[in-house]
Amino acid sequence: MRASCSTIFFLPSFVSTPKPQHPLFTVICVKSNIDYHTHTHTHTFFTTYLIPTGWSWRIKRKYMEGDAGRDLGCQKTMDGKANEDIPSCCLKARAFAPDPELQANCHATVVSGWFSESRSSSDDVAKRMYFNNPMWPGEAHSLAVEKILFKEKSEYQEVLVFESTTYGKVLVLDGILQLSEKDECAYQEMIAHLPLCSIKSPKNVLVVGGGDGGVLREISRHSSVELIDICEIDKMVIDVSKKFFPELAVGFEDSRVHLHVGDAVEFIRNVPEGKYDAIIVDSSDPVGPAQELVEQPFFEMLARALRPGGVLCNMAESMWLHTHLIQDMISVCQKIFKGSVHYAWTSVPTYPSGVIGFILCSTEGPPVDFRNPVNPIEKLEGALDHQRELKFYNSQMHKAAFALPPFVRKEVKCL
Amino acid sequence: MRASCSTIFFLPSFVSTPKPQHPLFTVICVKSNIDYHTHTHTHTFFTTYLIPTGWSWRIKRKYMEGDAGRDLGCQKTMDGKANEDIPSCCLKARAFAPDPELQANCHATVVSGWFSESRSSSDDVAKRMYFNNPMWPGEAHSLAVEKILFKEKSEYQEVLVFESTTYGKVLVLDGILQLSEKDECAYQEMIAHLPLCSIKSPKNVLVVGGGDGGVLREISRHSSVELIDICEIDKMVIDVSKKFFPELAVGFEDSRVHLHVGDAVEFIRNVPEGKYDAIIVDSSDPVGPAQELVEQPFFEMLARALRPGGVLCNMAESMWLHTHLIQDMISVCQKIFKGSVHYAWTSVPTYPSGVIGFILCSTEGPPVDFRNPVNPIEKLEGALDHQRELKFYNSQMHKAAFALPPFVRKEVKCL
Repeated sequence: MRASCSTIFFLPSFVSTPKPQHPLFTVICVKSNIDYHTHTHTHTFFTTYLIPTGWSWRIKRKYMEGDAGRDLGCQKTMDGKANEDIPSCCLKARAFAPDPELQANCHATVVSGWFSESRSSSDDVAKRMYFNNPMWPGEAHSLAVEKILFKEKSEYQEVLVFESTTYGKVLVLDGILQLSEKDECAYQEMIAHLPLCSIKSPKNVLVVGGGDGGVLREISRHSSVELIDICEIDKMVIDVSKKFFPELAVGFEDSRVHLHVGDAVEFIRNVPEGKYDAIIVDSSDPVGPAQELVEQPFFEMLARALRPGGVLCNMAESMWLHTHLIQDMISVCQKIFKGSVHYAWTSVPTYPSGVIGFILCSTEGPPVDFRNPVNPIEKLEGALDHQRELKFYNSQMHKAAFALPPFVRKEVKCL
Repeated sequence: MRASCSTIFFLPSFVSTPKPQHPLFTVICVKSNIDYHTHTHTHTFFTTYLIPTGWSWRIKRKYMEGDAGRDLGCQKTMDGKANEDIPSCCLKARAFAPDPELQANCHATVVSGWFSESRSSSDDVAKRMYFNNPMWPGEAHSLAVEKILFKEKSEYQEVLVFESTTYGKVLVLDGILQLSEKDECAYQEMIAHLPLCSIKSPKNVLVVGGGDGGVLREISRHSSVELIDICEIDKMVIDVSKKFFPELAVGFEDSRVHLHVGDAVEFIRNVPEGKYDAIIVDSSDPVGPAQELVEQPFFEMLARALRPGGVLCNMAESMWLHTHLIQDMISVCQKIFKGSVHYAWTSVPTYPSGVIGFILCSTEGPPVDFRNPVNPIEKLEGALDHQRELKFYNSQMHKAAFALPPFVRKEVKCL
């Protein structure tokens, strides 16, 4: 899963709903130019998300020290044609609602389409209903919807589950596809085992986000692990996963798992220094001006919570679409993580461009060679079949994930 | 590029046009059950392609020895619900035209859609026109079309070129996306260098299909190569590439290239035994009952044209969608290629499921270790920048391409 942790801002949700509400943020929607390079101060996060031409949202984190509860108020920027200075890969919101006609036909969750048919407004989905993943500018990936199984607004986001024709059940948060049963194995197994197989005998692990439980399922293959903290803000995601995705939610059944429903930033702030051997951030997209995710303070907190030589694995977008964001994240991480910083990627068909990347970092201390797993999963007793057989990850795939095409090394200069 | 060689049958074209015409095939369209496991004899190829419920096409190769010109005639099979015994991944045609309403709105090439708007029938494309890649059952990948640049029927297929919003120019043959400027590097570089970097000093190379020239561009990086034969059946593809895809068609400018416009089966039959060091089959999809491509005779001809220890690289679909086809191809290849047989894959965002696979085979003779390139591109003088810089391939990516997830090894048992 890629979202549902407040530290990660749910930016897509602000796009998909015209007047977003969030207990942790104030969001002001103004008609304006897109203002891409403003908006970050160390403890006061303003951000402007990409929006239909002539409109913007301004988002303020409420809970950061020193300015809790203070609203930003409406802040006008210039009118005019937007996206001049914005990397085109950041325009994903524009695929969502560039004009009223499109807006009318592109609901945040299930979109009819393709077939020029009028839609019923009921929840009874017509047989040719398609879900469009509006994550890529100028393109979309559509899945045929057999049946909508669940659709409700939580305190934080719209949660949708549908049965697809060929990808099994699908979880969608605020219109963004999070996982499908067919290919979740690739994401969950890689994000968990890339860090955990890179250190010997991990004991204490923290998961940020990951409310579906899939990452927990994978971590629990490691018998050395004694504690798995998970901090997920949205209880509805957990409940929905338990109901509709038992193969993922099985992760919660492990007695080593300690669930904390709440904000991860608050949680990490109160964690004793050096508590964890590994932290896995199962987050949403740091796309566009979601610069908080690539801000030093967030990564500093994570690094502080890790032991010397501890490891972080952070979802880090697609090498085909977002090399400038990867560059931003890597260069911040290189400042903070003095052990090592690497980028890895793998294939996930239902994600934009069919790939997803990970940043792997280690803190100063015993050296970590991410490219050559010192804790190979094949040698861990019972790991291959614990709860469910491993489908995607093995040591070969681990090593292969760090191979990068020349264009990535060229565009992400700090790699 | 993935199609445009007659040996490869253009199966998608038969699906996208109700009454397909082809100089080399007879295709009979009958309302019938889908008849998946019939249709191949050594020299008389019948095939049934997957079709809307209750309909099928029967295709006969006309040009094979012993039955040139003989038509099959209408052949009725049972009526009824189709696809009972068909692997669901083979149902891609069903995404195309399951009913008349869909058929009306899903033209073989550019499909409006998504936005429930009526289409102009002129070639003047509305700004929100999208191209749908109808390759996956129950899903589709749509690209926003800025402008249609070319659209004409060749002797063999409909050739379409459009400018996309975010993937550069796109080539579409009979409704199936062949390449986009943004990600063609991944396909062309891998299909060329996986075989050529696995043997020392390749001299004679044959390309089957590949009329866009991209594979030629890549082969020409190898200064050891003295002869590059290319056999492409459709001259229009070559002409269109020269006009719209100069970065690919540059491949034709190399003096080592000898172009043969014609049928590759005929061509290969007349090739002296053992002529080539490497053959690259840049083909369309062997999906569904396109079993000719996974038939022994075709591979036997290729093997005969290779020297001892020569190598074949054949496009081989997606590990996420078509493991049973990969299994078929691999097991046939293992019978014929007594050197080695391997499967590799890479990321190509615009292809179904975001990946494409390759079968790498070597004939009996000097052993070939595909996984460890003996002819690394980094050590070939001038190779990295010849005509255009390498964007995707390097020796790391080469080795990584052979890493396979456990689910692939489980489903493709002969690997």
